[in-house]
Amino acid sequence: MNKKRIRDYGIVIGRMTPGPLNKITDVPGVTVGHYTLDDEKHRTGVTVILPAPDNVYADKLTAVAHVINGFGKTAGTIQLDELGELETPIALTNTLNVGKVADGLVGYTLEQCAKEGLECTTINPVVGETNDSAMSDNSDRPLGEAEVRAAIAAACTDFDEGDVGAGKGTTGFGLKGGIGSASRQIELDGKTHTVGALVQCNFGRTDDLCIDGRPIGKRIAEKLREEERAECDKGSIMMVIATDIPLSELQLKRVAKRAAVGLIRTGSYLGHGSGDVVLAFTTANRHMRDDGAFRTMQAVNNSSIEEICRACSESVEEAILNAMSTADRVVGYSGKVLRGLNEFIPEYL
Amino acid sequence: MNKKRIRDYGIVIGRMTPGPLNKITDVPGVTVGHYTLDDEKHRTGVTVILPAPDNVYADKLTAVAHVINGFGKTAGTIQLDELGELETPIALTNTLNVGKVADGLVGYTLEQCAKEGLECTTINPVVGETNDSAMSDNSDRPLGEAEVRAAIAAACTDFDEGDVGAGKGTTGFGLKGGIGSASRQIELDGKTHTVGALVQCNFGRTDDLCIDGRPIGKRIAEKLREEERAECDKGSIMMVIATDIPLSELQLKRVAKRAAVGLIRTGSYLGHGSGDVVLAFTTANRHMRDDGAFRTMQAVNNSSIEEICRACSESVEEAILNAMSTADRVVGYSGKVLRGLNEFIPEYL
Amino acid sequence: MNKKRIRDYGIVIGRMTPGPLNKITDVPGVTVGHYTLDDEKHRTGVTVILPAPDNVYADKLTAVAHVINGFGKTAGTIQLDELGELETPIALTNTLNVGKVADGLVGYTLEQCAKEGLECTTINPVVGETNDSAMSDNSDRPLGEAEVRAAIAAACTDFDEGDVGAGKGTTGFGLKGGIGSASRQIELDGKTHTVGALVQCNFGRTDDLCIDGRPIGKRIAEKLREEERAECDKGSIMMVIATDIPLSELQLKRVAKRAAVGLIRTGSYLGHGSGDVVLAFTTANRHMRDDGAFRTMQAVNNSSIEEICRACSESVEEAILNAMSTADRVVGYSGKVLRGLNEFIPEYL
Amino acid sequence: MNKKRIRDYGIVIGRMTPGPLNKITDVPGVTVGHYTLDDEKHRTGVTVILPAPDNVYADKLTAVAHVINGFGKTAGTIQLDELGELETPIALTNTLNVGKVADGLVGYTLEQCAKEGLECTTINPVVGETNDSAMSDNSDRPLGEAEVRAAIAAACTDFDEGDVGAGKGTTGFGLKGGIGSASRQIELDGKTHTVGALVQCNFGRTDDLCIDGRPIGKRIAEKLREEERAECDKGSIMMVIATDIPLSELQLKRVAKRAAVGLIRTGSYLGHGSGDVVLAFTTANRHMRDDGAFRTMQAVNNSSIEEICRACSESVEEAILNAMSTADRVVGYSGKVLRGLNEFIPEYL
Repeated sequence: MNKKRIRDYGIVIGRMTPGPLNKITDVPGVTVGHYTLDDEKHRTGVTVILPAPDNVYADKLTAVAHVINGFGKTAGTIQLDELGELETPIALTNTLNVGKVADGLVGYTLEQCAKEGLECTTINPVVGETNDSAMSDNSDRPLGEAEVRAAIAAACTDFDEGDVGAGKGTTGFGLKGGIGSASRQIELDGKTHTVGALVQCNFGRTDDLCIDGRPIGKRIAEKLREEERAECDKGSIMMVIATDIPLSELQLKRVAKRAAVGLIRTGSYLGHGSGDVVLAFTTANRHMRDDGAFRTMQAVNNSSIEEICRACSESVEEAILNAMSTADRVVGYSGKVLRGLNEFIPEYL
Repeated sequence: MNKKRIRDYGIVIGRMTPGPLNKITDVPGVTVGHYTLDDEKHRTGVTVILPAPDNVYADKLTAVAHVINGFGKTAGTIQLDELGELETPIALTNTLNVGKVADGLVGYTLEQCAKEGLECTTINPVVGETNDSAMSDNSDRPLGEAEVRAAIAAACTDFDEGDVGAGKGTTGFGLKGGIGSASRQIELDGKTHTVGALVQCNFGRTDDLCIDGRPIGKRIAEKLREEERAECDKGSIMMVIATDIPLSELQLKRVAKRAAVGLIRTGSYLGHGSGDVVLAFTTANRHMRDDGAFRTMQAVNNSSIEEICRACSESVEEAILNAMSTADRVVGYSGKVLRGLNEFIPEYL
Repeated sequence: MNKKRIRDYGIVIGRMTPGPLNKITDVPGVTVGHYTLDDEKHRTGVTVILPAPDNVYADKLTAVAHVINGFGKTAGTIQLDELGELETPIALTNTLNVGKVADGLVGYTLEQCAKEGLECTTINPVVGETNDSAMSDNSDRPLGEAEVRAAIAAACTDFDEGDVGAGKGTTGFGLKGGIGSASRQIELDGKTHTVGALVQCNFGRTDDLCIDGRPIGKRIAEKLREEERAECDKGSIMMVIATDIPLSELQLKRVAKRAAVGLIRTGSYLGHGSGDVVLAFTTANRHMRDDGAFRTMQAVNNSSIEEICRACSESVEEAILNAMSTADRVVGYSGKVLRGLNEFIPEYL
Repeated sequence: MNKKRIRDYGIVIGRMTPGPLNKITDVPGVTVGHYTLDDEKHRTGVTVILPAPDNVYADKLTAVAHVINGFGKTAGTIQLDELGELETPIALTNTLNVGKVADGLVGYTLEQCAKEGLECTTINPVVGETNDSAMSDNSDRPLGEAEVRAAIAAACTDFDEGDVGAGKGTTGFGLKGGIGSASRQIELDGKTHTVGALVQCNFGRTDDLCIDGRPIGKRIAEKLREEERAECDKGSIMMVIATDIPLSELQLKRVAKRAAVGLIRTGSYLGHGSGDVVLAFTTANRHMRDDGAFRTMQAVNNSSIEEICRACSESVEEAILNAMSTADRVVGYSGKVLRGLNEFIPEYL
């Protein structure tokens, strides 16, 4: 399987230093797992981001949602907006499966809490989605609690990218999209911190693809047959941002907004039909269950925030390109072919 | 079964005239159906609001969400905010069941579209919820597509209120809550229009209950045993607003915001633990599938909007009181009793 | 001059305990000053709320805006929303004077910073307003930097309420409105904290006025001549909330939203023509100029927030009633008379 | 004076066709005027965009604000958000002058209405700003009603770009910024419509500048002395969007959001210190003063909106580059020099 990432082609996005894996899992405690469904009818799956190794329902994380284009079905955003708290893993899947995958997170969380003897009658499952219906017939909503649990069980730090999990049936500028990730390190008060991104990439017009400023999409479009090109930007992208930098909810929201920079730098025009959503959390400032009336937290000062924002932008840009460069050609249930960017990179870069 | 509404006790909320049924279904085309689950473990259900008799996915309605307190799991809000379009019925249920009920709306809509030969690979199910876990053990998420379909099949104009459907296990200021509805008529340019509300009432501290300004809650609290009183405002309220007045999305949002007035007039302090959400649609200005580049619509001028806002406020206030006055005492799965407001009204009003 | 507050009539709003002054200045460090313009043409003025005794531009405060109805000209909200920081006093004035009063805050802040040798080339003046044009001909925008400075110079803790400062020409449910204030105390972890409110009250239909649930407005309306009644809810209300409780920006926003409860409990229906805006700050968690990359702050846990929200609601409700009960009858430049609530209270309560 | 626009260098942004002037004034009825202040202390000014030739207070336009980064002082946004109505010209100026320029629009509007015998006691002036304090000492706020009136009097369709009006003292990626404009045409139902943009460009790190994907900023940075480079993205950009396409407020907001695409394509990372704000209006669907309860309007269908969004993106991108390419080197009051992009283009493109 192709696993060359964009950096392996000598393309360096931005000016900041990636973490050791150059993945969202460079943020300590974060793991990612996939369940891929690849059968006669389906090219789809579930990808989960576990923000911490322990029970996040019991000890919640500071988290926010930022909706760039809300033409999508992401679950859980209103409670994120209200409380600034994440209490489940984040799951990504296909459009029609959001309900069942959300229910799967509910089942998983109930069990986690039952084990610890915690009361749990209200759960806010956070589920993102993109539309892979060109490749996968999901009218039967094939993914539920079992598949969510399988993805959670598979979670690790050095997870696969490309055409796996929730990225199995997705596109990128008319080529094969998928799951991609990247990270950036930042020195703050003498200590190294990390910002990481994971994307479920399923958007873009072929013509618009840019790799580090190079308008490679126009040249690829010329090589594709008409029916292979994406003439319209639709399908969506989910962008998950993690960091270990202590931020207030407002500050985290400001950082999350900069995901749009990375997205647009790859060639997105924020197409009407592409639901572009950012979900961001910090592993710092956790809301521990045994706190009293107050809890002490840290926030950054405004003098530090610009570099954190940039780390988010660069991570998202590189994550999108990694999603595409690591994804092999896939044939959909209907025979539709999505070619891999790797079929074109050697020639065009 | 008790079916005395608040007006039957001589209490007239506001100064505007209700429609013939004094229900949300006074808005032409709107129907409501319930599925009630009342067995050993459960006091819960599904209530659906059908905004039109035909396929709303094919010909969408202008609709908005307004989140007063986002501590809740309402599904579908980001697409409502983005496109201002409703494309499924609205379903209400219990907190843990949102995923499966959303999935049920997906199944229903896929079938509706298949019948008409419409392509349908993206669906935004709109599902509201309140937390009835004190009365119903929903850890098994007992409501799914079959129950959603049953509720849809039962839809009619003169639907039941009180402890039915998604209101079976809900509370109101520590007493029994439920489903309630009301409507108001408005003359605009010589024609009668209607604004209607339906609420799933599950909020409130006993002490705080006000009926038309009368602080009846304090007196009821004195009569209740300590464990019967609600000392904390939690549980949530869903408020669905319908109208046949042509409004732009922005105008509809302004009207929806005034649902808070009706809510607060009954005694809500917008408690931290009560997710208070408004979902509003107009049956005018439908987005017909065969339109060209443009569609013609109507909007109201600012000189008309205040009375429409007030109609929304009054409808919500009366709908909450109707939810409570029509709901009989219910015993929960754990033996917890919710007494009916009707046990107290004759004495206190 | 009448200075009977609503509590002096035996009317106790809510169940929480006020601070010693029962004013926003019970929050340590907060002071309020007025400049009143009462000449042939004008019944208007400026009221300033100083959030701290020192230079707030140098050491900013956590602050937020919450817009209930944005039909108004309040200045400074987008930067409050973005940074969560207040860097000037808050000034209140009449609608047409916002620009000049904002400029006055700029002049004042430039001077403050010059004294301390601080660079200052960007200032976000925060100015609220209501429309007193029925009483005051402000087409000449009579209030500028001199008047802002006079109000600041007059700031104290035991400030006047009623028909003074920015409340000179305002209404309340068709009667005389004005500036009003109230506060509530909260025990958290064994220490007493305070939430205070100050309102510039200029809204309401006469019929709708409620005092602690009593529909006194209907009875007053019967006593008024037709031209004396307010038939339409317009004119606006500004609600300033202060606290010494440490809150994150998101938490402060949640508290600020509950100002709507107090407003609605007095009889507001959130009229189209009334711009209803909340400005809130905490004196805790200040952003000190000499901080490094991080700053340590405190936030409350969710178990504490409901009582803080309620303190906000109760303070706003009582502040509105204080604004009205302390305001004497005023004759406008055009001869229009606004009668004082105190002309009616003895009879109706 | 240099007036070569970016297209004159053979650089074609995007794929859509500009209008005849390739300026915002290609939208029929829109004119733009400048007042430039260039004296010993000042390099600043006022630029006004007149959305229609007649009294816009009397017959308002549909308009929205979209705040990308709210670290700025733009006036008038909350009423734009609430009512979706523009009732004054839009003025752009420097940060400290917002209050006085807003007051200038108030004075102008009062006079306009007095001429027509229209009552006018509430006015929502819309004023954007960027911070030109490195070039201009604006501590005396030198711009007021006279300068606003002068800019309005100078309004025309073929207005100047570059270092004029509110762009006199602004930067662009460390070089000279200014006022720039561009437009795009769209065929809808067989009729040509226009989207136009005008920017006040004052943002960007030198390293980040991209011209049509080319990372020219890095090469320019090497040529500049250290103190000439912008190492931090601050200063702000105002983006004004005009169109004659009939849109609802929600649709106009969706279009306005796509201004971020053009901005980011030039190299912005949405820096913390750059308040990035979009103000958009349509000349269609005007709210005429004599309407009854309802008004008829048109909206576009979703099938048309993507191209309109792209027109906004392309116009903003080209407008920014035009602002820079037409701006000559300017020496600030303190001796600081901003070099023109035109000093570098011939060499680097």
